[in-house]
Order: sequence, then C-alpha cells, then structure tokens
Amino acid sequence: MKIAVFPGDGIGAEVAREAVRVLEALNLPGLTLVEGDVGAIAYQRHGHPLPAETLDMAKASDAVLFGAVGDPSCDNLERHLRPEQAVLGLRSKLGLFANLRPATVFQGLEDMSGLRPELARTIDMLIVRELNGDVYFGDKGVRETADGEREGWDMMSYSTSEVRRIAHSGFQAARKRGSKLCSVDKANVLETSQLWRDVVVEVAAEYSDVELTHMYVDNAAMQMVKDPSQFDVVLTGNLFGDILSDLASMCVGSIGLLASASLGERQTKFGTFGLYEPIHGSAPDIAGQGLANPMAAILSVAMMLRHSFGMEDQAGRTEAAVAKALADGVRGRDLGGDLSTAAIGDAVLERL
Amino acid sequence: MKIAVFPGDGIGAEVAREAVRVLEALNLPGLTLVEGDVGAIAYQRHGHPLPAETLDMAKASDAVLFGAVGDPSCDNLERHLRPEQAVLGLRSKLGLFANLRPATVFQGLEDMSGLRPELARTIDMLIVRELNGDVYFGDKGVRETADGEREGWDMMSYSTSEVRRIAHSGFQAARKRGSKLCSVDKANVLETSQLWRDVVVEVAAEYSDVELTHMYVDNAAMQMVKDPSQFDVVLTGNLFGDILSDLASMCVGSIGLLASASLGERQTKFGTFGLYEPIHGSAPDIAGQGLANPMAAILSVAMMLRHSFGMEDQAGRTEAAVAKALADGVRGRDLGGDLSTAAIGDAVLERL
Ligand SMILES: CC(C)[C@H](C(=O)O)[C@@H](O)C(=O)O
Ligand SMILES: CC(C)[C@H](C(=O)O)[C@@H](O)C(=O)O
Repeated sequence: MKIAVFPGDGIGAEVAREAVRVLEALNLPGLTLVEGDVGAIAYQRHGHPLPAETLDMAKASDAVLFGAVGDPSCDNLERHLRPEQAVLGLRSKLGLFANLRPATVFQGLEDMSGLRPELARTIDMLIVRELNGDVYFGDKGVRETADGEREGWDMMSYSTSEVRRIAHSGFQAARKRGSKLCSVDKANVLETSQLWRDVVVEVAAEYSDVELTHMYVDNAAMQMVKDPSQFDVVLTGNLFGDILSDLASMCVGSIGLLASASLGERQTKFGTFGLYEPIHGSAPDIAGQGLANPMAAILSVAMMLRHSFGMEDQAGRTEAAVAKALADGVRGRDLGGDLSTAAIGDAVLERL
Repeated sequence: MKIAVFPGDGIGAEVAREAVRVLEALNLPGLTLVEGDVGAIAYQRHGHPLPAETLDMAKASDAVLFGAVGDPSCDNLERHLRPEQAVLGLRSKLGLFANLRPATVFQGLEDMSGLRPELARTIDMLIVRELNGDVYFGDKGVRETADGEREGWDMMSYSTSEVRRIAHSGFQAARKRGSKLCSVDKANVLETSQLWRDVVVEVAAEYSDVELTHMYVDNAAMQMVKDPSQFDVVLTGNLFGDILSDLASMCVGSIGLLASASLGERQTKFGTFGLYEPIHGSAPDIAGQGLANPMAAILSVAMMLRHSFGMEDQAGRTEAAVAKALADGVRGRDLGGDLSTAAIGDAVLERL
C-alpha cells in the first residue's frame, strides 16, 4: 500500500501532518508513505506548481493525500504557474472525474452553522461533482471582437460519455445512502445542461430503485438554505458543484470539518485510486501558527481508507474518533475553542 | 407616463393585479396602463411566448411591470417557444443589462430566514447582476465530437464594454449605499472572469470613494451564509448573479418579498426605462387560489417609481406601506399566515 502525501502550502502542510499521524497510528500492514511538492512551494523549488516528479509519484501510488495549495506570493504569476493549476492538473491528468463531498452536521455543532439549528440538524447530503469537464477544461482565451474590443471567453461543454460516467457515480452513491438523487443543472438556459439532463434520465433507467429529481441551480442554492433535509445525493457539473459544495459546507458550519474524495476509473490491487483532501484552502492568514483544524484532513484519510483501500472498519474507526473528540468538546479556533492543530491531532489519536 | 403591464402566467397575473391597484391608488398624474401577453399564455394565444406586439408595447412605454412566466404545459416545447424565452428575449431586445436585486430583511421577519436570526438581521445588500451577456447569450448547441458522441456546448464570454457598463452601475449603486462593492467572479479558472476582474479594477479608478473587493463565486456563496453583513453591493455576471441572488433571497426569508429592476441605457422623459418584476416565479402549484403574496410585485412598483419616474417620495411611501403591513402582522401563506392575495393587497392599500 503506497500513499503519496502532498502537503502543499500554508495550513495544508500543518493539517496533512496530523492526518499522517493518524494513518501511522492505524498500523496498516505494508504501508509506505512518500512525500511530494505541489503548489506555491513546488513552484519555488522546481519552477512549476505541479512538477513531473510529483505527478509520477501520484501515478505510482494507490492513493494521494493532499493538503491545500495557494499563496499570495503567486498572485501575479501567469495563470499556468499559479498553485490552483496543480489542483486542476492533478484532477485532469489522473482522470479524477468524480468528486465526492459529504456534508453532515456533527452532533453538538448545530450552532456553528449559519442556518437555524433546527435546519442545520437535518443536513445529511453527499455532493457528487463532475471534475474533469465543463467550463473548467474547455478552450479559453482572450480574443478581439468585431468592434476591436477585448473579450474573455471560455467554452462550456459536456459530452454524453462524460455525463454518463458521473451519473453512474451519483446513482451508485445514492443506492448506498437514501436512494434519492437530485441532479442540478440550468437546462432552461444551457444546452450543456439540457444534454446533461437527457443523459441523466437515460442512465436512471438502470437504477429504478433510486428516485431521481431535477433542479435548476439557482433554485438548488435557495433550497439548501430553505430546507436542506430534502437532499440526499446531489449530482452536478464542475462549475455548479464548486459553488454548491462550498455553500453546503457553510450550512454545516465549519469548513474545517469537511473532507472530499476525487476518484477516477483506475483500479489498484486494493480499490479505486483516488485523491483525498480537506475542502478548505491554504489559509495564508493563519498559516504557520498551529491554528488550523486538522479534522477535515483526518476525515479525508477516512474516505481514503474506505474508497481506495476497502477498509470500511478503519474508516469508521477514524470517523468515530473525530466525532468522539467533537462530542467531548475538542475545539479549534474555527469552532470557538483554543486547541492547536497538534493538540486536536492528539485528541483524535487518543480516541482512535 | 405609460406603463406596460405583462402579468404572464400562474400567480404572475394574481400579484400583478394587486401591484396595479397600488399604482392606481397613488393617483399619478397622466398615468396610462396598457396590458400585454407574455409567457405560456402568450404562446397559447399567439403561438409565441414573446409576441411582436408585446415587445412593441414595451418599447412604446416608459416602464414595464412584469408578473411571472412559466407553465408545466410548456415543458416539452422546443426551447425557443418556452416561457423563459420571453424573459430572456425582453432582457436582450430591450437592452436591459443591469439587474438590481435588493435583499434586506424586514423587521419582525428575521425568523423566516433559513439563517440564524442574528445573521439574518444583518442582511442589507444589493445584488447588481449583468443581464445581457455571459453564457446565457453566447452561441450554443449540440455537436458531434471526434469520437462520434453528442456534446452540448455553450460559449461563455464578456467583452470590455459589457463589463465596463455594468461595473459603472455597480459603483454608482455603491455610492448611494454603503460605498462598498464586492465583485464576484471565478478568475482563478475562467478567462471571462479574469477580463471581468481587470475591467472592474480599471473602472474603480473613477470611484476612489468606493471600497472594491473581489471574491471567488464559491467563497461568495459560502460567505452569504456565514456572514452576510459583510456585503453592501455585490457586482457579478449573469450566471453567478442568477445563483447568488436566489441564495440571498432565501437568506432574507421569503422569496415573496423580493423585487427587482432591470435597467438599460434608454432614457425616457421621466427617467431610465426599466422592467420591474418580483423575483419569484409563476408557482403553478398554488396558482389561481389567491395564495400568492403580492408584496414582491408591489415592491417592484416602488422600484419602478424610483428608477423610471424619479418619484422617490411615492417609492418610499409604497415601501413604507408594505413594511407597516408586515409590522402589523399582515401575513400570507408564505409567511405562515392565512391572508389571501387580495387581502394582502387591501392591507397595503389601507396603509398607503
Ligand atoms: C482552487 C479551485 C480551482 C478549486 C475549484 O474551483 O475547483 C477549488 O475551489 C475547489 O473547489 O476545489
Ligand atoms: C427564468 C430564467 C431564465 C431566469 C434566469 O436564469 O435568469 C430566472 O431564473 C431569473 O433569475 O430571472
């Protein structure tokens, strides 16, 4: 079992450290950890946010644990050298098309949500976001219009096979949960969305046990705040998924508690190859001070154990340790407490 | 003063009726009202959701009061015949590029918000959404890929002049409010957004009294739930504006209370030509039963008086009547009460 760890920038490195401690404490047989550079630190050391060695290391591993990337020092670099490109490059070059972002409120944390506690309490959804297509990866550029003006442009598109494979991910996830799938698009305006909707309906024929609904993205954003309990699995494209998953995370409360998995088609000896990361960013403003909450990174390890190594028991054990720590009042600054990153890591380890 | 009234479908007609009663009660000198068909009803009567007569009527008026469009009977029509096309057609053919959507919580209604009351209470923002460009109006279609698959596609773009004019709308609005403008984009991924950001920064040089910030759209969705008090004027493109304004409306509480103005460059004798509409839809499920809240439509009249007729006094008087009715406990079904559409109209008229 080989895991590549890419701590990245800012608090990414701090939270990844605690996640690695948890991985090590689980005493998994035959575990090897290798470490690679991504993001601003990779740019500084190797001249590129996603060096070839890092990409090769990911390809030679069974799973990747990713911290976070981004640093203000890179704001004025050309687009292809900015840290975000490491994220986009890993997703596309590793074929990680299915991004799973669970959003569930931990008991006792209902008051951290921006939503009223009685609404927050009901949140238990999984956002399945397509990650290899849409306006993210289409052609783009700046051109001159007929009037001699500059115009920025980006091509949005989805092909049937791209929609089909993520639709299967969505339906399969729904089957393992509440058997409800809500597909979110903007089919009243976009041809990309109309094709998306048509293909999702087609795929639904193979999942008659899953209840399928469709929602426009503007309404979906509204419904997440109005009545989040209606959502089980939310299936959506790359751009809408980016917005809705961040929105869902704030409905839950702290972005320091939410993990994500990015999966592709590649199968290893142990399970599905995937990249796992907290959904928070590198938070340069609090970096280097031990103020970050490592729980999202630790929960990302749990998702890795489940999806890439089929170790449901160890995954559950890790999640239970985090839940127990929270129930016992273990709180970092993001949750109104004062425990350091390492102290939170200790607290989770003790409960493992 | 000539106002074209397009009631449209479902509850659109019901709420427009009450808004017209308010308009009439104001006894505006020389007021003429004309009525036109849009949406599903226009399709049924004339074979098109936006008949030429309706468009001409709008062009010959100083302002348009719009109800809502949409009916399930049209779901299987070709795209260009669906009711939404009337909305998009009016926006583009009348050059209505600036959509203003204020979101403020009415006193006593903090509990209707999905947000915690202490957050809801702080909401006082204006969303300025570009309405004539973006992926809404670019080329689009379905094509065959090199692999012989179908692919849906939509071109996203903004030119410098398109961004410049809406940026001016945003900065000017900010000047009349709290002098803070937050421009929302996705410049870390989209060239359209990068150009947007560059032009907004350029225009900012003319408004040194306004504080400009930039936010990525995923973060903006999150921040609206986390701390909505940070927003004064939010400036954004057509697609992100669609999502964020619906989200903001639910943070406020009921979508039955939010009005909008869509303004262009055309000046009439009285002010800026504009189209005014509640942001809610036609709600076919409750149509025809007197269950709709006409307050958003009535508040749209207030926006019309302000922007198209320069009648700040009458606008304020109308808004005060609605606020007074709400403070007095006047509640439709959307707010947990049982007053009918007409009874709510009566209550506002009494307080005018
Ligand atoms: C960093 C950025 C390119 C990325 C995205 O937009 O996908 C991030 O917001 C995310 O959601 O992982
Ligand atoms: C009906 C639809 C085309 C429209 C839009 O997406 O702009 C609506 O959602 C709105 O916000 O006015």
